[in-house]
Amino acid sequence: MNLITPVILCGGSGTRLWPRSRKSAPKPFINLVGDTSLFRQAIDRCSDAAQFSDPVIVSGEAHVALIKQQLPSEQSYSLLVEPMARNTAPAIALAAASLDPDAIMLVCPSDHHIADPAAFSKAASAAADLARDDWLVSFGIAPDRPETGYGYIQQGEVMGGGYRVHKFVEKPDKATAEQFLAAGGYAWNGGIFAFKAGNLLKELSHYRADMAGAVTQAFAGANCQGNLVRPDADAFAMIEGESIDYAVMENTARAAMVPVSMGWSDIGNWAAVHDALEQDDRGNYAAAGHQLEDCNNVLVVSDGKRVSAVGLEDLCIVVDGDDILVTRMDRAQDVGRLDGPNSQK
Amino acid sequence: MNLITPVILCGGSGTRLWPRSRKSAPKPFINLVGDTSLFRQAIDRCSDAAQFSDPVIVSGEAHVALIKQQLPSEQSYSLLVEPMARNTAPAIALAAASLDPDAIMLVCPSDHHIADPAAFSKAASAAADLARDDWLVSFGIAPDRPETGYGYIQQGEVMGGGYRVHKFVEKPDKATAEQFLAAGGYAWNGGIFAFKAGNLLKELSHYRADMAGAVTQAFAGANCQGNLVRPDADAFAMIEGESIDYAVMENTARAAMVPVSMGWSDIGNWAAVHDALEQDDRGNYAAAGHQLEDCNNVLVVSDGKRVSAVGLEDLCIVVDGDDILVTRMDRAQDVGRLDGPNSQK
Repeated sequence: MNLITPVILCGGSGTRLWPRSRKSAPKPFINLVGDTSLFRQAIDRCSDAAQFSDPVIVSGEAHVALIKQQLPSEQSYSLLVEPMARNTAPAIALAAASLDPDAIMLVCPSDHHIADPAAFSKAASAAADLARDDWLVSFGIAPDRPETGYGYIQQGEVMGGGYRVHKFVEKPDKATAEQFLAAGGYAWNGGIFAFKAGNLLKELSHYRADMAGAVTQAFAGANCQGNLVRPDADAFAMIEGESIDYAVMENTARAAMVPVSMGWSDIGNWAAVHDALEQDDRGNYAAAGHQLEDCNNVLVVSDGKRVSAVGLEDLCIVVDGDDILVTRMDRAQDVGRLDGPNSQK
Repeated sequence: MNLITPVILCGGSGTRLWPRSRKSAPKPFINLVGDTSLFRQAIDRCSDAAQFSDPVIVSGEAHVALIKQQLPSEQSYSLLVEPMARNTAPAIALAAASLDPDAIMLVCPSDHHIADPAAFSKAASAAADLARDDWLVSFGIAPDRPETGYGYIQQGEVMGGGYRVHKFVEKPDKATAEQFLAAGGYAWNGGIFAFKAGNLLKELSHYRADMAGAVTQAFAGANCQGNLVRPDADAFAMIEGESIDYAVMENTARAAMVPVSMGWSDIGNWAAVHDALEQDDRGNYAAAGHQLEDCNNVLVVSDGKRVSAVGLEDLCIVVDGDDILVTRMDRAQDVGRLDGPNSQK
C-alpha cells in the first residue's frame, strides 16, 4: 500500500503561549493562527485520502475530549492515550507498535503552523519514498534566519528526493547559527519524521532496548475501547522519557532528510504567533473592535475584551479570562517563566 | 462667623482616565489614589469643624446617588443639582446665591489630589483672611516643573498671607513655562478660590450681568427637597457656559493669591495618577497579585483581573470591565481621544 499514516503527537504544554494556552486547553487546541486550532490544521493537512490513511493520534488522557470535539465528525482515527508523558520516543514507538511493520508513518507534532500545505504534502511524498527504501527521514526545514532555538540537520550526499544526514547539531549559539545560514547545507529539525513502523521499532530495540521492551509490553497490555487504545500504565510508567532525536535519529546509520520550505513555525511564543499572522502595514495584528493608535509591531489577542492602545512599539498584548499579559516582543520567550502559567490548574 | 464654607464642584468627565473613569462613575468618584475617591478626599480635607462649615456640593443629576453613597453617613451638606453643565462660573455663582453674602466660600474641584492636607488647610486660612478683606483669592500652586497644561498666576506685591495678582497667564508653551519656572513669582492656577459669596456675585454682576441674572433667576425658581436644591432648568439653560477664571478672576481689580505647596495634582491622566502613587524603586506601581518582570516606570491599575508584564518601560496598563487600555506614559493625555471613552454610555 502506498498511503502514508499520519501520526499526530499532541504533547507540549505551550506555557510560553499563556494565558491563551492553559493546562485545560493547551497550545495545540486553541486557535492561534486562523479559525481552527493547530491540532485541527495538522489533521487537515493529512486529510487527502489519495495520499494519507486515517491518522493515529497520541495524546494524554486530559485532552481526549478536546480531540474528539475538534476532529471533523466524519473522521476515522485511532487514539493512543498515554498514561503519562514520556517525551516523543515512547509516543512514536507506541504508534509504531499499533501499525503494520511496513506502514509508512509520518510523525507530525500537532502544535506547529505550516503556511504552505502543498509544500508539506510534496515533502511528505518525498520522505515516504525514502522511508519505503528503509531510511529514517527527517524534514529539513529551510532556515530563513540564524535561529538559536532549534536543532539543525547538516545534509550529506544527495539521495532520491533528499539527502543523507551528515549529522544532527544541537541548538547552536548565534555565531554558529549565522555560519550555518551563510554556509548553506543546514536545515532546521522541525520534529517531522517519516519511517516504516517496523524500522523505527527495530532501531529503537537496537539503541534503546529497555524502552522498546517497555513500549511493546505497554501496548500488549493495552485496554481498547473502540478506536481508543490505553496502554498498560505500569509498563509505560517504567519508561525513561526521551526524545526520538536522542533515542533513534541521532544514532541510526539510516538517517535521511528531505529539504522543505513550507512557511513552517513551531509557534514557540507570542512573537512567533505575530510572525505567522497577516499584519497591517505598520506590522500590527489585532482583530476588529480593538483600537491601535500610533502603534507599530503590536500583537493583540483577546477573548473578546476590547484592547485600546496608544503609542506602543514591539509589544504583545494577550487577554484571556481574568488574565492580561503584556510582554515586549523580544521577551516573549520568557512568558513561560511567569507565575501565571506555572500556577494554573 | 469665622468658618469657611467648602464649595465642592463635581464636574469633569475625566475621559483621559478611561476606562476606570466612565460616564456612570467619572473621575471624582473612583478610587485613583488611595482607598477613597477624589471627591471623598475633597470632602475629608474640609471636615475640620473648627475651620469649615458644612459643604455645598454642586453636581449634575447623574451623580447624586454616587455623592450620597460616598459621603460619610453623618455628614450634613447641601447639594445643588445643575440641570445641565455650564462650566464653573454658573456653578460657583449658584453656590454663592445659596449662601449668606458674608459667607467665605472655598471653591474646590472634587477631582484633584492633594498629598499634604495640612498645607491645604493652612492656605485655606490665609485665603479666607484675604477674602474677609474683600479680595477674590486664588490658590497659587508652587510649580515644580515647566508644565504647559495649566494656566499660571503671576504674583504682584505682598499682601497679608499672600500677594496681589499681577496677572493671569494662559497655558504657556514649553519655553515660556521654563522661563516662568526660572524667573520665580509664577504659580499654577489650580482652580481653588476663596471669596465672600456676596463679592463673587457682585463682581459677576459687573462683568457678566446676563449670567448673574440668569443664575439668580434659576436659584429663585429652584425646587428644594430637603438639602437637595434643583435650580430652574429653563433659566439655567439660558446661561452661556464660562469658566470662573474668564468670567471673574481675570477681570476683577481685587484678585489676590496665596502661595501653596501641597503636593497638588489635577490627576489629569494616567501618568499623573502614576506620579501621585507610591512607586517601588524601579518606578513601578501595581497592587499585589500582579507580576511585573523586568519592568520600569510601569503603572498597573486593574479591577481585579491579573496583569502579567515582561520587559516593559514607561507604560500604563489599565483594566476595567471589558476594556483594557495600554498606553505609553508620555501619550497618556491622548487617551481621551480614543473610541472607548467617546462611545461609552
